Parts: sequence; structure tokens; C-alpha cells
Amino acid sequence: MTDLRIAIVGFGKIARDQHVGAIAATPGATLAAVASRNASLPGLPHFATIEELLEKGPPIDAVSLCTPPQVRRAQAAAALAAGKHVMLEKPPGTGVAELDPLIAMAAGAKRTLFATWHSRYAPAVEPARQWLAGRRIASVHISWKEDVRVWHPGQGWIWEPGGLGVFDPGINALSILTRILPQPVFVTAAELAFPANCQAPIAANLTLTDIGGLPVSAEFDFRQTGPQSWDIVVGTDQGRMILSNGGARMAIDGKVLAEAPDEEYRGLYRRFVALAASGASDVDLAPLRLVADAFLLGRRTVVETFVD
Amino acid sequence: MTDLRIAIVGFGKIARDQHVGAIAATPGATLAAVASRNASLPGLPHFATIEELLEKGPPIDAVSLCTPPQVRRAQAAAALAAGKHVMLEKPPGTGVAELDPLIAMAAGAKRTLFATWHSRYAPAVEPARQWLAGRRIASVHISWKEDVRVWHPGQGWIWEPGGLGVFDPGINALSILTRILPQPVFVTAAELAFPANCQAPIAANLTLTDIGGLPVSAEFDFRQTGPQSWDIVVGTDQGRMILSNGGARMAIDGKVLAEAPDEEYRGLYRRFVALAASGASDVDLAPLRLVADAFLLGRRTVVETFVD
Repeated sequence: MTDLRIAIVGFGKIARDQHVGAIAATPGATLAAVASRNASLPGLPHFATIEELLEKGPPIDAVSLCTPPQVRRAQAAAALAAGKHVMLEKPPGTGVAELDPLIAMAAGAKRTLFATWHSRYAPAVEPARQWLAGRRIASVHISWKEDVRVWHPGQGWIWEPGGLGVFDPGINALSILTRILPQPVFVTAAELAFPANCQAPIAANLTLTDIGGLPVSAEFDFRQTGPQSWDIVVGTDQGRMILSNGGARMAIDGKVLAEAPDEEYRGLYRRFVALAASGASDVDLAPLRLVADAFLLGRRTVVETFVD
Repeated sequence: MTDLRIAIVGFGKIARDQHVGAIAATPGATLAAVASRNASLPGLPHFATIEELLEKGPPIDAVSLCTPPQVRRAQAAAALAAGKHVMLEKPPGTGVAELDPLIAMAAGAKRTLFATWHSRYAPAVEPARQWLAGRRIASVHISWKEDVRVWHPGQGWIWEPGGLGVFDPGINALSILTRILPQPVFVTAAELAFPANCQAPIAANLTLTDIGGLPVSAEFDFRQTGPQSWDIVVGTDQGRMILSNGGARMAIDGKVLAEAPDEEYRGLYRRFVALAASGASDVDLAPLRLVADAFLLGRRTVVETFVD
């Protein structure tokens, strides 16, 4: 089998920090080009836009879209129309409904559409899912608190409509939650704190449950300047599980049962290569749907102006 | 076949204005009881809550939930668990994801879950759908402008989180739109105007499209004190269709091709009786999903305080 020739579209922080190295480390994947208005990678063909890439670029099989969510749908449609497999950074769109036509296009063209949730590939997520499958779950609490100035410097799009604000990291927690719980959950209440000058919340508290009434709470906060937390705590009839470090570490009643270095993006590209081999798609919209519901039914408060 | 014995739960304006008469006029349907904290109907068994109805009430086969959306999910779950068919007023929930477990419950119990969209049963909607099916559609514009003080007097829940505000009528337009167009649409931009004292918008402008790039715009406004409008205008290669009066009248280039008195709720109950005969469900979440997406990706502005 020849390598999957991938072009990265959108060459910002996440592309440089994660995608380039992960593609390099993935058997069967080759980075063939970059499309970005502002940035390039020495030694690789570079194009300003995806249209230029598709028209004038070297032969490629797939694109990995690392642009902000507000422009990704049109890029995905263009790539699928050109017969390319498409990998979408999270969130997969600015809205839930915009994915349906892309799913249909991918199916019609027998091309892969892969809506990625990188946190699901954190090393302790699968062990956590398996451990919970045999337990009676009593409660779940998510604490996802980070300093936006440290982790999202200069990412103005995050505060624009469709940028998700604190849900940009928060949706990672929801992607893990919807993976490790045996039952689907839904949002019943939400509090969203919008800075006076922003179109996306800087903090949010969510109340969720499942059909059995499981109490699930989530605290998302972008204003955390002390210790950062990316933790999911699950109370069960056989002990208390803490999935911490964004899914990298699982402990039961204080005893560490799983811990490994981060290889999330390598997991994503291994999966993308496998999917593309058959043209199958993998699009799970559950995490984005929970965020949409939080916006739909949430109570909004206005808080202090945010200056990056 | 014996009649479907229906209890109405929530006896506010919509129940009195529409449901009672429609059940009375529908062959195969009988109104058997009312559950409502504040209101009753002379001559009918009355209970304060759905729990009391299910526990102590007369034999019933189905409930029709006319309560505000914020409390409907739990009521639907209780009714399905008690083996009853369930009809949901619109919107079917305060969030999209909360419907999934209800759909699964209904399927498991072989009971009907019917998420109604009454405007789809307006007399000119089906003629409009058929007429458009053979045309090339160039543009769509929705104008849904009404005086909230006239149409929703004292309905405080509409301004609370999950109450939808102007989307409470606006979702009727979206339910028609998603029925008459041959392709699914999605929201690409939205402007939401929130009164300073309300948790739901009083006006909204939406931009939508489909995979082919069809331009669709929608203006929803609750502050209309002059002529009211519930119109959808569709430009095509073979003339301009105006679907007006909330779907009651269709005209092509000014010539009226369909017009009839409103029997929307009779249509709903005919459908409910037919569905319940086999225990089949009918839940289309497309209109609610569009509203959720509008909240998710919309730009919010704050406007004048609203006093009912």
C-alpha cells in the first residue's frame, strides 16, 4: 500500500505543535503540502488557499483541516468535491447541521470524512471506558480549568461567533465523557459567562444527566491562573475513578492504573490512514450537540471584559 | 378499533385554543382526562400532575404534552415508562440531545413518540412542497413578524432559558422550510437580539444555505405592531412562490393555487391516531437543530428591556 499523501490546510499553532510531528510519526502517512495564508514549512510545497492547493498542488489523497471552525465547512466541501479524504480538527463545525451534507458527500464519493476528537485518543481514555463498563456509576464531575492566555495566545477567532470560547477546550472533556459513559447524556441546565466584549463564553457550568438520572456536572473556566485542571471524576459502587491530565492518567481510589505520554494526534492519524484505506467515515457529533444544547438552553451572564 | 384515549397534560392557551377542539373533531380520538396545576375542563377527570394522572386516573392510552418545553422531557419519560403513547407540542425539547433517550424508550416499549410540528399541517404546505419539487430554486426568504404581546400574553416561560423567545413562532417557519425544500439546509450566520432582561431573543436574523449554496434568509421579530407576517417567499426558475399566513395560502406570481382554513391540529391528531395504531414514532429534530445552531454560532446583541 502506498502512503496517504496529506496536505495540512491552516498552519497555526495546532498544526505546528501536533499535526506535523504526528504525520511524520505515522506509518502510511506522508505530509505532501501546506496551504496557509500566513505560514509555510521549509521544503514543502506551499499554497495560499485550499483552492490553489487543489488546482495547482502536487498529487494528494487527503487534506487535514486545521483552520478555525468558521471556514472549515466550505474547505471540506471543496476537498470532497475534488475526491480527497478529509480530516477535521475539533470542533467539526460551527453548527451541527452543516455536517450532514458533508457526510452525504463523503458517502457518495466513497471518501473518508473523519471528525476528530483528539482527547478520545489520550492513553487512559480506553482503560477508563473499560473499567466503567463493569461498574454502577453514581456521579460524574468534570473540572476543566485553564488559563486562556497561556494556551490560546492571540487566537481571536475563539471569541468570535462560532469560536466556542471556553468550550473549545471544554468540548475535549465532553468528547471523553461521551466516550467513556455507557449511556448517552444530555444537558438539562447551563450557565454561560460571556465577557462584555466577546461573542463566546469565558466560563460555563453545565448540568447533564442520562435517562437513568445520573448526576453529571461540568465546570469549564478559561480564567484559571493557578493550577490547571483537566479532570473527570467518576463515583462508582466500586471506587472513585479520577481521569486526569486530559485523559492521560487514570487512578482508582488514588491508585494509578493507567498513565502514558501523550500520543493523541498519532492515534488520530493512524485512524485516518485506516479509514482512508476503505473510504469509511467516522463522524460523531455528540460532543458538539451537547455544546449547542448548552448555548440553546443556557442562562447567560455578562462578566468582565476580556483582553488577551 | 377502539378510540385512542388521550389525556392532555398542561392546560394553557394552546391546549384550550387548539388541542381540545382538534381531539373532539378527530375520529378515533377521545379526550379522557386533563392534568394541570392551574386549570381543568368541566366534566373531565382532572389531576394536578402527570404522576397523579398516571397513578390514579382513568384508563388512558396516550398523553398529549402541552406544557412548556422545560418540563416536557421528564413528563414524556414518565408516560412512556407507564406504557403510554406520547405526543409532544413544539419545540420537542429544550435541547436536541434529550430526545435520543425518549426515542429509544419509545422504540423499546413499542409506543409512539410523536414530535409535532403543527405548521407542517397547514393546508398549503404540501402543495408548496410538491410545486417546488419540480422547480429550480434560486432563493428563499422568510419573514415571520408578530406582536408577542398579542400572541403570547403572559407566557413568561418563553423568555426563560429553554423558552426560545422569538424562535417559539420562528421554529414554525423552520419546520415548514425543512419540509418544503428538497435539500437539507443549515445555518451559517445569525444575529440574535436579547432584551436586557430576558434569556431568549426577541428578534433574530438567520442566514442559511444548502450544499448547493442556495441563499436562504430569515427574519424573525416579536416586536411587530403593524401588519403581521408569516410568509415564506421562494424564487424559482418558473415563478415566485409566496407561502403566506403561516402556510395557509400559496400563490405563484400572485395567483392563488392553494388556500384553505386552518386545520393544523386536526391533522396532528389524525397522524397521532394513525401512528399509535402501530406504535410507530415520528420525531424530526431538524427544526430544533437549526435553532440550536443559531444560538451556537449567532452574534448576540442586547436590546431594550421587554415588559409584557
